[in-house]
Amino acid sequence: MNVTEAIEARRSVKHYDTNHVMPEADLAELIRLTKLAPSSFNMQNYRILVVRDPETRQQIRAVAWDQPQVTDASVLFIMCADLTAHLANPSDYWSHAPEEVQNIIGPMIRPFYEGNDRLIRDEAMRSAALAGMTLMLAAKDMGYDSCPMIGFDAAKVAELINLPENYAIGFMIPVGKQSQPGWERGDRLTDNKVVTYDKF
Amino acid sequence: MNVTEAIEARRSVKHYDTNHVMPEADLAELIRLTKLAPSSFNMQNYRILVVRDPETRQQIRAVAWDQPQVTDASVLFIMCADLTAHLANPSDYWSHAPEEVQNIIGPMIRPFYEGNDRLIRDEAMRSAALAGMTLMLAAKDMGYDSCPMIGFDAAKVAELINLPENYAIGFMIPVGKQSQPGWERGDRLTDNKVVTYDKF
Repeated sequence: MNVTEAIEARRSVKHYDTNHVMPEADLAELIRLTKLAPSSFNMQNYRILVVRDPETRQQIRAVAWDQPQVTDASVLFIMCADLTAHLANPSDYWSHAPEEVQNIIGPMIRPFYEGNDRLIRDEAMRSAALAGMTLMLAAKDMGYDSCPMIGFDAAKVAELINLPENYAIGFMIPVGKQSQPGWERGDRLTDNKVVTYDKF
Repeated sequence: MNVTEAIEARRSVKHYDTNHVMPEADLAELIRLTKLAPSSFNMQNYRILVVRDPETRQQIRAVAWDQPQVTDASVLFIMCADLTAHLANPSDYWSHAPEEVQNIIGPMIRPFYEGNDRLIRDEAMRSAALAGMTLMLAAKDMGYDSCPMIGFDAAKVAELINLPENYAIGFMIPVGKQSQPGWERGDRLTDNKVVTYDKF
């Protein structure tokens, strides 16, 4: 499926075949492609929780407005991010640049974020979403549907999944084989409401 | 180009053909596809600034660590979001659901966000990134390269583009025809650093 077709065909699907089990090879491929999403300074601060345990899924559904896709999709991805990723050693993820660039950029990363809690949080949300969008389009290409979700009690989900204190939850993405299609695509706002040229 | 190829081939490209002018039809298609990205409650809270004016681009470059892609790419997209989108009338963007669902969900949107500044900001970053990732993969499919950027003085860019008070900047994406390829892809962190199963 080409990119245009995948973008057009992706819909938020809420009803899934509960008998479908995602093959390990498909899960590995989805994760491989998700990890190719960009992140600032290539920090790869996204953290992916793959929830398959039925009991945990049922507990999460109970704090997610009882939405069926939480338990019924083949896999529930919880897209998180590490709020302390900027403290890691840049040499772990900065080998792609010429050495002279590494020597300039590496020492810039920590001070760029340190003490700026809003920027750190923004970065968590950006990276979780860039990775999550990549995951949803890759899933569509592989014959799966998905449903990005923020309709849940984030504090209770954090407790259920033992979220580390230095992590934030971005959003959840159930992925599986649809049993019913999503709704018709909602109206798009007209371009003059969402697109502006040169300056606001 | 299929989705897997586009995800694999997308690199952050910093050097562009300064003579290339993006045809209006390509720009329109990029915007059409970007607008198919999902957003919470289908609020479509992303706002896309398309900067082509050379003087504005030069001013932005001056507060973006003098990075060449800001002026040299064919178009500079600044992915923003409206922090008050949850106050809009849901009937503008919620026509896709059955009427009984509209009647339940519509009134939920405003109270879900109101008074929760962090959630509102998170939503801005998520939507800008979901739309931006869609834009970058669509661009790759159409023969363009891109470079997601947060390395700029956001307050100064906000001033240069007359950012409305109720908008936030997510990140910038120069898009154009590369004159030099991006660096080799940086090392990926191993799965055991970014993927966890069932609970942390």
